[in-house]
Amino acid sequence: MKYGGYKGKILRVNLTTRKTSIMEITDEFARKYLGGNGFAVRFLFDMIDPRIDAFDPTNVIAMMTGPFQGIYVPTSGKYLLAAKSPLTNGYFDSISGGQIGAEIKYAGYDGILIIGRADKPVYIFVDDDKVEFKSAERLWGRLTSETQEMIKEEIGDPRLSVSAIGPAGENKVRYACVITEYRAAGRGGIGAVMGSKNLKAIAVRGSGTNEPANPEALEAWMKWYNEEVKKVPALTTGLPVYGTPILVSSINNMFGGFGTRNYQTEYFEGWEGLCAELLKSKYWDKDSACPACPIASSKIFSVKEGKWKGAISEGPDYETIYSFGSMCGINDIGLVIKADSMCDEYGMDTVSCGVTISFIMECYEKGLITKENTDGMEFKFGNDDVVIQSIEKIAKRIGIGDLMAEGSLRAARIIGGNSERFAIQVKGLEIPGHSARALRGMALGYAVASRGGSHHDPRPTGEYAGASDRKAVEGKASWVIGTMRWTTIGDSMIICHFLERLLGYTLNQRHVDMINPVTGFGYTYEELVDVAERILDLERAFNVRAGIRRKDDTLPRRFLEEPIASGPSKGMHTDEFTLNKMLDEFYELKGWDKRTGIPTKEKLIRIGLEDVALELEKL
Amino acid sequence: MKYGGYKGKILRVNLTTRKTSIMEITDEFARKYLGGNGFAVRFLFDMIDPRIDAFDPTNVIAMMTGPFQGIYVPTSGKYLLAAKSPLTNGYFDSISGGQIGAEIKYAGYDGILIIGRADKPVYIFVDDDKVEFKSAERLWGRLTSETQEMIKEEIGDPRLSVSAIGPAGENKVRYACVITEYRAAGRGGIGAVMGSKNLKAIAVRGSGTNEPANPEALEAWMKWYNEEVKKVPALTTGLPVYGTPILVSSINNMFGGFGTRNYQTEYFEGWEGLCAELLKSKYWDKDSACPACPIASSKIFSVKEGKWKGAISEGPDYETIYSFGSMCGINDIGLVIKADSMCDEYGMDTVSCGVTISFIMECYEKGLITKENTDGMEFKFGNDDVVIQSIEKIAKRIGIGDLMAEGSLRAARIIGGNSERFAIQVKGLEIPGHSARALRGMALGYAVASRGGSHHDPRPTGEYAGASDRKAVEGKASWVIGTMRWTTIGDSMIICHFLERLLGYTLNQRHVDMINPVTGFGYTYEELVDVAERILDLERAFNVRAGIRRKDDTLPRRFLEEPIASGPSKGMHTDEFTLNKMLDEFYELKGWDKRTGIPTKEKLIRIGLEDVALELEKL
Repeated sequence: MKYGGYKGKILRVNLTTRKTSIMEITDEFARKYLGGNGFAVRFLFDMIDPRIDAFDPTNVIAMMTGPFQGIYVPTSGKYLLAAKSPLTNGYFDSISGGQIGAEIKYAGYDGILIIGRADKPVYIFVDDDKVEFKSAERLWGRLTSETQEMIKEEIGDPRLSVSAIGPAGENKVRYACVITEYRAAGRGGIGAVMGSKNLKAIAVRGSGTNEPANPEALEAWMKWYNEEVKKVPALTTGLPVYGTPILVSSINNMFGGFGTRNYQTEYFEGWEGLCAELLKSKYWDKDSACPACPIASSKIFSVKEGKWKGAISEGPDYETIYSFGSMCGINDIGLVIKADSMCDEYGMDTVSCGVTISFIMECYEKGLITKENTDGMEFKFGNDDVVIQSIEKIAKRIGIGDLMAEGSLRAARIIGGNSERFAIQVKGLEIPGHSARALRGMALGYAVASRGGSHHDPRPTGEYAGASDRKAVEGKASWVIGTMRWTTIGDSMIICHFLERLLGYTLNQRHVDMINPVTGFGYTYEELVDVAERILDLERAFNVRAGIRRKDDTLPRRFLEEPIASGPSKGMHTDEFTLNKMLDEFYELKGWDKRTGIPTKEKLIRIGLEDVALELEKL
Repeated sequence: MKYGGYKGKILRVNLTTRKTSIMEITDEFARKYLGGNGFAVRFLFDMIDPRIDAFDPTNVIAMMTGPFQGIYVPTSGKYLLAAKSPLTNGYFDSISGGQIGAEIKYAGYDGILIIGRADKPVYIFVDDDKVEFKSAERLWGRLTSETQEMIKEEIGDPRLSVSAIGPAGENKVRYACVITEYRAAGRGGIGAVMGSKNLKAIAVRGSGTNEPANPEALEAWMKWYNEEVKKVPALTTGLPVYGTPILVSSINNMFGGFGTRNYQTEYFEGWEGLCAELLKSKYWDKDSACPACPIASSKIFSVKEGKWKGAISEGPDYETIYSFGSMCGINDIGLVIKADSMCDEYGMDTVSCGVTISFIMECYEKGLITKENTDGMEFKFGNDDVVIQSIEKIAKRIGIGDLMAEGSLRAARIIGGNSERFAIQVKGLEIPGHSARALRGMALGYAVASRGGSHHDPRPTGEYAGASDRKAVEGKASWVIGTMRWTTIGDSMIICHFLERLLGYTLNQRHVDMINPVTGFGYTYEELVDVAERILDLERAFNVRAGIRRKDDTLPRRFLEEPIASGPSKGMHTDEFTLNKMLDEFYELKGWDKRTGIPTKEKLIRIGLEDVALELEKL
């Protein structure tokens, strides 16, 4: 290829026939879709019947890199997984830290596409141009750390990069994740899709390199980065010292948006038992980081005394403190460390897991389910034993865990009554710890995000920082579009969203300046906006073919109808009228049909998706 | 209720919470939806998110009766199962013989709705108003006959009616069926939906009755029936003596529409080894029948000598002779008896099973898959050992059986190459032994049927009988609509489609005359047409919400592009141009939008489905 940052090849793996093949990608394709989620959504749109179920063997797992992997640009030590999601039934991608992204490049590929279903448990070992299907029968049932270790040992390479599922993925827990080293491709249940394919792990090793188009220009950019990053406290002191738990105090005490007891309120009186200062002073062991990351927001924490003594985890991050802490009404960070480590080992998303437990607690307290349904457990907020027992039951689908393994939306539809109103999810994906009621942009953002309740489609950070007034309705659609353009481009380059504090909260020239040295595209800002819109609208088109419309762009009824009950944001929420107003503006600006939420033909043609427009015309 | 034939109650069973409840149905509802598939599709449309996967615990199994069950009207010894199908991802219903339909009425219900997922294998025992969830752990892995016997023994009632799945259902083979006595709710994979819910069986016993509205009028109708049926040779000699295998000779030798070797042709030179005369003379043991059926087309056949000596089965019917015989290139009816009995015991649809094996044979012969993929088996047409081994491997999802358990469409999408062109299915459902090339009505009928490749949506019988010219294009849309109206009403009354030879091939006044004595509705013909259209369009609306459009109303490419290669119908087929012409006419007559295939608002309002029109407007 004439551009930098690409190998020009996609490895295709068929688990059923155990055959592999190479698909070449063109310069034009790379420039049009950039990498990461851009590549993934194009492949999935073309390869998958959007009506299939996520566990259909014709579902495709896209394991993708962007142009940055393996070049040691700050925060690029990552890779992306995408598939049709068993939680949302729509397009889903999830990014994880891990050296495996670089190794894919070094092995000579921009990504791997996996189709079919092995008849017995296997793992794939990609060693440059050699691909082996290896038995995973002795690995089946193993935790994620064991699995990685056993594969490294079998291959005889202690530095081998392995992405693995745990028992939760094997048991098709709908929010099972994929673990690489200690990092998770966490959300949306791609671990369950791997499980449905009898694919325990993917190991990749490469001996090549990945080269930027213009090393001098990249060096100049690096110099700029090193100067500028010093001016950003979050990236030089906040996150490096405390990690994301630093958010607990401000989100609870300043913003009053710390989801508590399944969002019965958003101010948690027990926040001090969950805060970063406590974590740092009493639980911190050492810092950790994704490869090539100077920020190093990850920490190893362990519990030195008390009920959960001995628990050790890389993490918990802010979202996990929210989901197992305030959401479950628990003010003991030791419990959260224990829960976090269990989720990592079983291979489950901590957000969906904690929020689903919290949902079941509310159902129990409201009498919609009883001890008969909970294997005798007292599902009351604050019951830490229930949380720990639930995690194991979910991963193994035992008793009430079998229901919770389906996530909060499906659980609500089975439990019935009025429970769906307080299932804290959008399109089936549980909402993380950034308030849809205290932040207006997240209200609109969650509603329209391709992935559902995700804080990596729109980002909350700019509203916390005051770059957009968190209470404003005017102009919010435009703001949300800007943040979604940035996250989409970030997920195509595959760099960390934390860089928003340096590069900006919405897509801008700085992103162009970061991409061009590596790729040599010579993008203009306008061209990069088109790339972002192309990827976002292709995600939407995938979802539209899967049945998603404006009717699905909404929030839990609780958020639309109940203002926050207490704390600094008491009284705030976005009602249905206001949401609809923002939605109208959003569709208008996007060039989507207002009645249906389907991208218009004109818009799709303008961004070079004529073929997609033709597909949507058949609906 | 003021009408006859109804109990006015639906039993709702939640497998997750192990709770049950009663839903009352109104007179208006009964009159509007009649019963059977009319009830089922209304409940499923209202209860199911159409975007879920079939194995989602929120999928609903509707086990329904019509007004006729338990009244001993000829051929009404049946019941209906419906759910979202794992094969088509659309609405699906399947009717089976069995006393259990009458027992549901006798227990006081018009049907049972089952939602959720048991955390461990269970079976449900409905004993009048008592409902028990009983452990099925010792039944898991058992064959269908054993399962029924063990449940009868456990309950202590040798006459108990039990509908059960076999290992295929447990293993979620996408075309797993549900067996009651020796009869199957065969098509569309509802057995797999039961398996996904950990529901091994449903047993029902009732002590009540079901009463017609007007016993005198019904007696008069019975008198008419008994006189008229004597004039119909098919119902008094053909089917009673030979069963459906009598079709082999005429379909092969007269119509040249006997799918052979995966439809590489439609004339099977080995037909004599599969014909009814041979079956009757050398294999027949005794006749059999559904409850209340004077036709008794079923037979018990056994193999007295040769390779398959000892095999015994109720059946095979014509479709099974086609799928395992001519389609697999096998001219030994003994093999078919063996295959049939295995499918019944493992609980699998014989049509989809045989057609999928046939598909894999063609892939193998064309080199698209090799011995590496087939566990070393020689997948050549005519290899009877491969057929028998495949059935076991499919049911247990072993080796290549794991792929075949997905059906031909999904297998084709994984195998790739040009294989999808000769995957003999529509919307994922394998086509039975009634030619889409030799019968023009079936070409259109399969394309538009709610269930996909089903010969119980449109019926071939009228074209065989010459009531509609099998080669004509003109007027065929209207003919197909007429036959679909009849089957739909037949599936709502729940009576056997064989009665078409007496009542007529398309909906007419005779159906009205049969319904009114039982229900007391006093339907006019026009009103009954509206009932039929309401049910059919509601099925379509369910499918539309699940993503099905005109683009999906098509046939395998082989049928559209390759004329029949040999035999009496050599050269016949329906090309894409002709199919499109018929489709245009069909949509026009139906009041469906021609571009999309979606029922228009005007049509839906006219048939009393305003709420459905509003739902579809959100798309």
